[in-house]
Amino acid sequence: MIIVLKPQITKKEETAVLREIRRRGYRPHIMRGVARTVIGAIGDEQTHQTLETLINWSQVESVMPVQKRYKLVSREAHPTDSTVSVRGNVIGGKKFHVMAGPCSVESEEQLMAVARAVKTAGATFLRGGAFKPRTSPYEFQGLGQKGLKLLAKARAETGLAVITELLSEDHAELVAEYADILQIGTRNAQNFQLLIAAAKTGKPILLKRGMSMRIEEWLLAGEYVLSNENPNLLFCERGIRTFETYTRNTLDLSAIPIIKQESHCPVIIDPSQGSGRADLVIAMCKGAVAMGADALLVEVHPDPAKAWSDGAQQLTPDLFARLMTDIQPLLAAVGRE
Amino acid sequence: MIIVLKPQITKKEETAVLREIRRRGYRPHIMRGVARTVIGAIGDEQTHQTLETLINWSQVESVMPVQKRYKLVSREAHPTDSTVSVRGNVIGGKKFHVMAGPCSVESEEQLMAVARAVKTAGATFLRGGAFKPRTSPYEFQGLGQKGLKLLAKARAETGLAVITELLSEDHAELVAEYADILQIGTRNAQNFQLLIAAAKTGKPILLKRGMSMRIEEWLLAGEYVLSNENPNLLFCERGIRTFETYTRNTLDLSAIPIIKQESHCPVIIDPSQGSGRADLVIAMCKGAVAMGADALLVEVHPDPAKAWSDGAQQLTPDLFARLMTDIQPLLAAVGRE
Amino acid sequence: MIIVLKPQITKKEETAVLREIRRRGYRPHIMRGVARTVIGAIGDEQTHQTLETLINWSQVESVMPVQKRYKLVSREAHPTDSTVSVRGNVIGGKKFHVMAGPCSVESEEQLMAVARAVKTAGATFLRGGAFKPRTSPYEFQGLGQKGLKLLAKARAETGLAVITELLSEDHAELVAEYADILQIGTRNAQNFQLLIAAAKTGKPILLKRGMSMRIEEWLLAGEYVLSNENPNLLFCERGIRTFETYTRNTLDLSAIPIIKQESHCPVIIDPSQGSGRADLVIAMCKGAVAMGADALLVEVHPDPAKAWSDGAQQLTPDLFARLMTDIQPLLAAVGRE
Amino acid sequence: MIIVLKPQITKKEETAVLREIRRRGYRPHIMRGVARTVIGAIGDEQTHQTLETLINWSQVESVMPVQKRYKLVSREAHPTDSTVSVRGNVIGGKKFHVMAGPCSVESEEQLMAVARAVKTAGATFLRGGAFKPRTSPYEFQGLGQKGLKLLAKARAETGLAVITELLSEDHAELVAEYADILQIGTRNAQNFQLLIAAAKTGKPILLKRGMSMRIEEWLLAGEYVLSNENPNLLFCERGIRTFETYTRNTLDLSAIPIIKQESHCPVIIDPSQGSGRADLVIAMCKGAVAMGADALLVEVHPDPAKAWSDGAQQLTPDLFARLMTDIQPLLAAVGRE
Repeated sequence: MIIVLKPQITKKEETAVLREIRRRGYRPHIMRGVARTVIGAIGDEQTHQTLETLINWSQVESVMPVQKRYKLVSREAHPTDSTVSVRGNVIGGKKFHVMAGPCSVESEEQLMAVARAVKTAGATFLRGGAFKPRTSPYEFQGLGQKGLKLLAKARAETGLAVITELLSEDHAELVAEYADILQIGTRNAQNFQLLIAAAKTGKPILLKRGMSMRIEEWLLAGEYVLSNENPNLLFCERGIRTFETYTRNTLDLSAIPIIKQESHCPVIIDPSQGSGRADLVIAMCKGAVAMGADALLVEVHPDPAKAWSDGAQQLTPDLFARLMTDIQPLLAAVGRE
Repeated sequence: MIIVLKPQITKKEETAVLREIRRRGYRPHIMRGVARTVIGAIGDEQTHQTLETLINWSQVESVMPVQKRYKLVSREAHPTDSTVSVRGNVIGGKKFHVMAGPCSVESEEQLMAVARAVKTAGATFLRGGAFKPRTSPYEFQGLGQKGLKLLAKARAETGLAVITELLSEDHAELVAEYADILQIGTRNAQNFQLLIAAAKTGKPILLKRGMSMRIEEWLLAGEYVLSNENPNLLFCERGIRTFETYTRNTLDLSAIPIIKQESHCPVIIDPSQGSGRADLVIAMCKGAVAMGADALLVEVHPDPAKAWSDGAQQLTPDLFARLMTDIQPLLAAVGRE
Repeated sequence: MIIVLKPQITKKEETAVLREIRRRGYRPHIMRGVARTVIGAIGDEQTHQTLETLINWSQVESVMPVQKRYKLVSREAHPTDSTVSVRGNVIGGKKFHVMAGPCSVESEEQLMAVARAVKTAGATFLRGGAFKPRTSPYEFQGLGQKGLKLLAKARAETGLAVITELLSEDHAELVAEYADILQIGTRNAQNFQLLIAAAKTGKPILLKRGMSMRIEEWLLAGEYVLSNENPNLLFCERGIRTFETYTRNTLDLSAIPIIKQESHCPVIIDPSQGSGRADLVIAMCKGAVAMGADALLVEVHPDPAKAWSDGAQQLTPDLFARLMTDIQPLLAAVGRE
Repeated sequence: MIIVLKPQITKKEETAVLREIRRRGYRPHIMRGVARTVIGAIGDEQTHQTLETLINWSQVESVMPVQKRYKLVSREAHPTDSTVSVRGNVIGGKKFHVMAGPCSVESEEQLMAVARAVKTAGATFLRGGAFKPRTSPYEFQGLGQKGLKLLAKARAETGLAVITELLSEDHAELVAEYADILQIGTRNAQNFQLLIAAAKTGKPILLKRGMSMRIEEWLLAGEYVLSNENPNLLFCERGIRTFETYTRNTLDLSAIPIIKQESHCPVIIDPSQGSGRADLVIAMCKGAVAMGADALLVEVHPDPAKAWSDGAQQLTPDLFARLMTDIQPLLAAVGRE
């Protein structure tokens, strides 16, 4: 920790800071600068109590941490890329994956139609919401267990692995029974109890970025998964909330190189939530592929205008097939399969 | 709903839109304007399936809802101010309330010291976290049930009512047993399962605004409480996330007149989270009082620099006493007690 | 400057950093911590070339400045409050000021009606735009010099001092001839050439906060005024851009205590731009008064619905009179006149 | 325009709205819905006075425009892509362009070294700031005319066309004399007087997106160029301001498909300002190419750590050469040269 003292403080005030630093187990190191005195507090910031509360003292101007707060998700802890294996599909390796399906599971007919279509077009995972977090209590909340069963049925028929959202600690066992990957949604990205419950099922976790989460906070939320003995973590960027109103969210594609730099975990892009507009999805996917994403998570519906949720952002099966074709040359260009 | 069609579409494309509007139970009403054709879809937007998914059709330029999406929390539904009574304290009436206490309950000694001090200074509620949501898994997570018991003990001694955070559905019964008001934190403001579980305990709910929640989303989250048969809802503004880095959050005091205009529920301001800096808390409180807030939620710690969490924003008992003195003339000026 | 080195770098890489620090005139001071080596670079950051570019070196993890970048506007440079005198009105002293008038000067009739009304209600300054920055080129751009002449005429009749916006370097002389205070608008808050031209007229400058300006950037923009030999600077908060759509901007009232803490210059609040809604203006003004603002800048129009610009946020003369009445007890409560 | 009336208003209040709509030249069209009465006001919103000010009336709940506010920049006005020709380089056509050079022109030696290096690597334009807008008045403000002369010299030697920033109306003639494209920076993106002055020089204009500009506002700022008889407009995305602190700005790559959809003008990406970190620039460029950008604007410096401005985000000539190699397969994949 670096502690910057205010100018013109007394010797006694300075001594009090030094004493407190020592009391918390750090070794203080004084540097007298031109305009300010700076104290380096030497000690492991990840194990010692933080000194950030010293900002509360009138003689302290600022306190700056030196170490990063995340450990297990960090590239420092695991210099090579980690991969997550799901029913024979390795995410984070040379092969690129596409996870596709409806926003919500609505009926057997709807789900099977989509599952077959996305399988044919080349997807390896089927996505679909059985439990849906909805802004209003009056909106469709998902089919629940019935939806999970339909997902399992679609998997049995098509061979696609299943990813679906977990939104309650109380459903963790149930959802884990049916799903191959548990998705944690943006509104629950800092619902730490849910993260712990999800991690403990042992299933791979796809952690969406919270709508207003800084990269550091996202990595620390991931740390909740890894520190609960679950090494199978996927980070999924799905757009952040900004002042822009043309799109529903602002998809932050810089998250791809940043996560690759700071962490060893695979990175997935969700362009459907990320833009909220089907007409932008294909372009966003192209960018994601070129920038090194490991997979895409795309919403596909047989008839988006009739969807029970988020119709504006779902692709038709035809558009999805075109997407799969359009990204081929880019995958080749970046050396992915 | 208002549906704006794109210019230069065919008659057939227009007819398809009209047919779909009718199919969903609305009555279409066409207006041919100078540059665009606009269709009014007449029908109750709160009971009919939404038409917003029509945006997915290539002939549709935009779809705009006409009705508000929240009902029970709205001023329309309940034109007079509602109040919430807790152990004889009426929040939302003429009497102004101050809820104060430490960020985290750390020990009996710490909690009792604060409880006595804030009681003496005029607070009517004791706040204190027993279960703490922390950005990093390596930070102090709260004393849990032991903390709840200490809160109950402090209540028994001082007569202060207790407000504490609920962060897991699984703790709902437990926390409700000890607390007088259940607080839902900013990271869980759209954790709808938690909102439902909290509502069902029957205890009053203080709902903090999510860090990046629009007013409409906040009101709809409140709707989850009222529609689950719990009429005792308090909205608490605690700062939103912006680009500013001087403060931890940007306290949006305009939430006070806005919530008063749109809803009948009481409004509470949390200036501690809202600024993240003790040196700004008193000024923020003055603004909140003048603008018509019904209560304040303030963090107080016997020795903030030694606090186990959020030390930078907690007031000393002395500063808290000064705050209570400073707001008196303002309370008088706005006709509050 | 504090330079944090990456872990596991070579001795040679470290030496290169030390050499470069010395080359730029700083004295390096090494601290070997548990996980990182930290170098304090001692020297005046306000006169030496910055070391922030070292972040470009592969062995450097982060570079943190220690000193604040603003000098003349800072409280350190001028510990007591500064005041700005305009035609006998002292802004920043015990007397509170209200600047009121239409968004745009539209006609003699309109301006005179407003000027008389706001004068009667207690305003001391008349505001009104003669040159208007408009988002679209097809919107009303202001009456130009004709508007300035009308403002001067209104001043002659009512005795109100005049504040109006300057939006082009080329108009600096012209606008300064008519106005008592030059207003720099939010879109020009980092138009440094305009700031310099405005400062050089010698007239007091009201500097609005840029829509997405951090406090530090705002203070540095003010530094352009003071460093160009013009000591008469007023900071005006007018709302920042956030994700919220209920209001046009989010009025950041915390700017009042922050500017008071960091700077000696007066602080003014513009609740009209700050909320974009007349129905919120009075509440925002109350907060501003209670929190210690030195003046208000309020839009008033004889018939807001017919205004040529920003009608949604202008008060009627009647509402303005009510505002002036409503803030009296609060002014008394905070000891202002 | 669509005007939504509040529920439970009187007949007289409704009539007043209808009268005002007619007075402004629109034809009102009433739709009585289930919960609200909605009025369609038929007339050209681009030529009639706006009705948005009606929001000020107590009986009006909301006012929604139907038409888009931009005309000349819109795809509707010019369905095919427009191109901008500069010294034989056609921007917006099949050939992809890279504009590269230092943030600031510092010396002949520095500029020539970069110019030769970027030319060799394949750039077609040389960028370099001669007039620099700096957050602090104490930072390097550019070499001014001397810098412009060096740029002209580099052009003479290398054949690269020159792009440089214009930041003052008073410099418009001067900068236009030396530059092939005038760049308008993010802080001046709504400095409309500067936009008009730049447009009137007849030179092509590269308009950076303002830090907190919505797409619609950016398009309207472009409208200032086209409506001042200058058809040569390039939109340049350079990152928006968000809550994220890992990067200096958040590069919004979705701007590429959005601008392509709404406008006919070419789109350019600036990944250097957009991320503020050299280590992210190459990845961002790959995304931009794949998503259909027409050109890149990249900062290159012979020794970034010694740069006089923005050293953290400038590439070395070696990294720039690698960038040019890395994007080749992607250009091929999207059918660009």
